[in-house]
Amino acid sequence: MPYVNIKVTNEGVTRQQKQRLVSGVNHLLKEVLNKDPKSTFVIIDEVELDNWGIGFDLVSDIRKSLD
Amino acid sequence: MPYVNIKVTNEGVTRQQKQRLVSGVNHLLKEVLNKDPKSTFVIIDEVELDNWGIGFDLVSDIRKSLD
Amino acid sequence: MPYVNIKVTNEGVTRQQKQRLVSGVNHLLKEVLNKDPKSTFVIIDEVELDNWGIGFDLVSDIRKSLD
Amino acid sequence: MPYVNIKVTNEGVTRQQKQRLVSGVNHLLKEVLNKDPKSTFVIIDEVELDNWGIGFDLVSDIRKSLD
Amino acid sequence: MPYVNIKVTNEGVTRQQKQRLVSGVNHLLKEVLNKDPKSTFVIIDEVELDNWGIGFDLVSDIRKSLD
Amino acid sequence: MPYVNIKVTNEGVTRQQKQRLVSGVNHLLKEVLNKDPKSTFVIIDEVELDNWGIGFDLVSDIRKSLD
Repeated sequence: MPYVNIKVTNEGVTRQQKQRLVSGVNHLLKEVLNKDPKSTFVIIDEVELDNWGIGFDLVSDIRKSLD
Repeated sequence: MPYVNIKVTNEGVTRQQKQRLVSGVNHLLKEVLNKDPKSTFVIIDEVELDNWGIGFDLVSDIRKSLD
Repeated sequence: MPYVNIKVTNEGVTRQQKQRLVSGVNHLLKEVLNKDPKSTFVIIDEVELDNWGIGFDLVSDIRKSLD
Repeated sequence: MPYVNIKVTNEGVTRQQKQRLVSGVNHLLKEVLNKDPKSTFVIIDEVELDNWGIGFDLVSDIRKSLD
Repeated sequence: MPYVNIKVTNEGVTRQQKQRLVSGVNHLLKEVLNKDPKSTFVIIDEVELDNWGIGFDLVSDIRKSLD
Repeated sequence: MPYVNIKVTNEGVTRQQKQRLVSGVNHLLKEVLNKDPKSTFVIIDEVELDNWGIGFDLVSDIRKSLD
């Protein structure tokens, strides 16, 4: 039953990392709430740096300021 | 007033199918709750197979295992 | 696989109406995209009238202006 | 057309504040993107402090540690 | 703490406009609810015209009918 | 930066379990993507059984059928 949505910035998340996230979330829900993985959805959204703001800044600008 | 979000896997949903989904949802909301289609939003998200997990697996792997 | 989220105002949606919405959405997804109902989630959110704005107004005020 | 969802902690947001948020978002979208307020939805979700985590902590605990 | 999601149609929103939206939302939340910009997320989703329906129509068709 | 939304049915999730979910998600994101917990939001939504459908049925009915 659980539905989990993970939003991260679009910075090259690999397929293998997505697999680990999906698997990790399922283990967590099974362990904490005894949820059945067979009916657990996990959706990963990869958001462009220009489309995510923290405070007054776009993440793309925050990243540049750290370079 | 209703806002409806439909998330499906990105597997070639055609424009015509999107039209039928939008129209069908509006008919349903009109029929069941008498909602005014003019102020009903339907947003369709098409999610990559690598970005949708069911249980411990990515849908892309589930699809491969069925091929 | 589909995940559908329906947001409507909290104005007394009955259990039976929720059942019809869930069932209707599943029939629609089965018919248009041949999706398997067994793995289709529909979540209904009922939003307070003070928490939904259209344009510059809260729906609660819009409703009052129509009374 | 815009749909805006604002999630804040459930800490006594008044009706008048909700009105100002809805109105402010509409002015912003009108000014920046010339969007028509008549077809702009704003939905405010008030999330319990126990249901919002930042880092390893629930906001309820973060609040207590600041008291 | 606030999390704000802005969904607009994918019709060429510029980087500068995204910056103004993010900044404007932060000013609004600071002014109305005294929220700290440093922990305010704003995510902008740009939705294809074929993926957004109003009433029985896709926005892409609505746009064409206005041309 | 990550934003994670966990939707589960409203069936008595305890505060302690919410804490374990929030903490577990942060550990996972730190381990897999090296994300900074200080700027990771996790929001847990508890959905009424009448408001969650799987296939043609409300979860409340599914639960009853299993009693």
